[in-house]
Amino acid sequence: MVIVGAGVIGLTCAWRLAEAGATVRVLDPSPARGASWAAAGMLAPVTELHYGEDALLQLNLAAVDRWPAHAAALAAAGVDVGYVECGSLLVARDADDAAEHRRLLAVQEQLGMDVEWVRSRDLRRLEPALSPSVRSGIRVDGDHQVDNRALVEGLLTLCRFDGRVTVDTDTVAAVQRDDGRVTGVATGDGRTVRADRVVLAAGARSGLVDGLDLPAPVRPVKGQLLHLRNTGGPLLRRNIRGEDCYIVSRPDGRVVVGATMEEQGFDDRPTAGAVRDLLQAAWELVPGLAEATFVEVAVGFRPGSPDNAPLMGPLPGHEGLVVATGHARNGVLQSALTAEAVVAWVTGTDVPDAVVPFAPDRIASPAA
Amino acid sequence: MVIVGAGVIGLTCAWRLAEAGATVRVLDPSPARGASWAAAGMLAPVTELHYGEDALLQLNLAAVDRWPAHAAALAAAGVDVGYVECGSLLVARDADDAAEHRRLLAVQEQLGMDVEWVRSRDLRRLEPALSPSVRSGIRVDGDHQVDNRALVEGLLTLCRFDGRVTVDTDTVAAVQRDDGRVTGVATGDGRTVRADRVVLAAGARSGLVDGLDLPAPVRPVKGQLLHLRNTGGPLLRRNIRGEDCYIVSRPDGRVVVGATMEEQGFDDRPTAGAVRDLLQAAWELVPGLAEATFVEVAVGFRPGSPDNAPLMGPLPGHEGLVVATGHARNGVLQSALTAEAVVAWVTGTDVPDAVVPFAPDRIASPAA
Repeated sequence: MVIVGAGVIGLTCAWRLAEAGATVRVLDPSPARGASWAAAGMLAPVTELHYGEDALLQLNLAAVDRWPAHAAALAAAGVDVGYVECGSLLVARDADDAAEHRRLLAVQEQLGMDVEWVRSRDLRRLEPALSPSVRSGIRVDGDHQVDNRALVEGLLTLCRFDGRVTVDTDTVAAVQRDDGRVTGVATGDGRTVRADRVVLAAGARSGLVDGLDLPAPVRPVKGQLLHLRNTGGPLLRRNIRGEDCYIVSRPDGRVVVGATMEEQGFDDRPTAGAVRDLLQAAWELVPGLAEATFVEVAVGFRPGSPDNAPLMGPLPGHEGLVVATGHARNGVLQSALTAEAVVAWVTGTDVPDAVVPFAPDRIASPAA
Repeated sequence: MVIVGAGVIGLTCAWRLAEAGATVRVLDPSPARGASWAAAGMLAPVTELHYGEDALLQLNLAAVDRWPAHAAALAAAGVDVGYVECGSLLVARDADDAAEHRRLLAVQEQLGMDVEWVRSRDLRRLEPALSPSVRSGIRVDGDHQVDNRALVEGLLTLCRFDGRVTVDTDTVAAVQRDDGRVTGVATGDGRTVRADRVVLAAGARSGLVDGLDLPAPVRPVKGQLLHLRNTGGPLLRRNIRGEDCYIVSRPDGRVVVGATMEEQGFDDRPTAGAVRDLLQAAWELVPGLAEATFVEVAVGFRPGSPDNAPLMGPLPGHEGLVVATGHARNGVLQSALTAEAVVAWVTGTDVPDAVVPFAPDRIASPAA
């Protein structure tokens, strides 16, 4: 079988499918790069919550539940992905933010989530590096983090050393079908790779793969993130999330500040304005970051869907095809659960309940 | 003879000395890098003017006078250094800046410099990309620019293809003397390179070379600069200089925003705070830069001297030694004139008048 895409979704699927006995060929011109490389690795089912996205919240809660066992399985295979149960702190800079957070807290408590209001004088005790101008916070213990780069590099290494998996750097131009049944994929240089099963995990590039009637368009949502390094070790224990940025601090002093959300097509230029805005926003929350080493601007394209939720599952009229894309900002978080579901679809066993609402044909095609 | 340092000063000296018939060995662990690589290439004798630095102004005016012929000579040798007689615009953001500029203009006019007051409504005609919040400006036609990276790379190439010059990547640990006369240099790995003439052009590292009684300490002044690229071509015709940054725009759309002045020793980390401050300052002057591609943070160490002026000439008690260091922010500007003077000292001909006040023993040693 063929997996189109070697990001965190494609590679996790490859690893788990090989474990389940399949022989897998993964095709991606830039394995382990793309959106999963540019991400921050925040596992944030709770602070990612938006009003009206209850099914997505349930998906994300199910997804984060998979992470302790998933990280342990990766560790047993020799890959340390830097999984840390650090929690998050959602911080308010002004009265408007604080009022909004009060409403959010009510919803979170109603949903039974493990959250707690933190007053200004308690904030500095939790996180001494926070600016005195931060007014209040919501402490969220259910959010965690993983080192997304260690994760995708580790998965790629596991796949390359697994005799059942090959990873090739071909671009996939099209999925080929015969009478509604998948027969293989066509590569960018015109060759055919035969396969009776195909997993589409091409992220933001899923919409560029021909030969599919994807009902929902997957579009690139450009994200710019900054990589910094604090020389004196970590400045923060928790993920910090403000109105204009989030800050993820690794135990070794690395810091990721994210992220822009830009509808710019596939323009992959880091821009001066994004760097300025992210640094300014981060500095207002954590002034000590001004002394951190500026390491890199990372740019990636998240696979965006019309309803901000992934497209997962078989697609009617495309026998043999499983779709696993559109994960937007939550690909790392949802990767373990997605791979579990893909294995279930491929082997014909029961898929986790949480993924059922996210069938790729849930959204009416514009042409329908 | 040996030249210690392959920055813009050392390489220009090497090229000109070889042209004068000398056989030259240049030693530098990182040829064509360092301060000259990190610079912006602004040739700014006029806007660099500070009160009370009249001799330095005369030096810089003499230095910029050398540039047309120097650039032509380099071009004739096959090196395009991007010399552009673009002029500068010194801009005021508020009433305080403007009042200060009125005083500066009076001094500049008294010195007979080619400067002109520019009112707000004329600014946008000269430079349409300037922010409407810029109040006034001083137009300085005597300031120019050169592509400092093309310059040092070009000089290095000329030296490497010149049979009389060798460029080795040794560190120089000490200058060796016998009875007050230079006999050679000791490399970092303990070898001796014999030479009866040595040119010390080690920039900020000049103070790290043992065996010399330099009367003035040369210290590293850390500078951080940003390299951007505007995709639609150049945003600006002139060098723009504000209170908190300068912006040098190349004809191909590249932009250099500089520069911090930090007393941080040899700490070569680019910092988040410097990037933020420079982007913010540049954006306030030229808002369109927000869309420019963020390319790089460059870090260099300018050779600072106690009076902000270079140390140039023979050093009593060090027969055979010529010092050419301490050029601070003006190494590129002063390089052609410095090399002319070094050739004169080495060959025993008359040195240009403008360099005479900058003998290395003009400053009393702290121990004296």
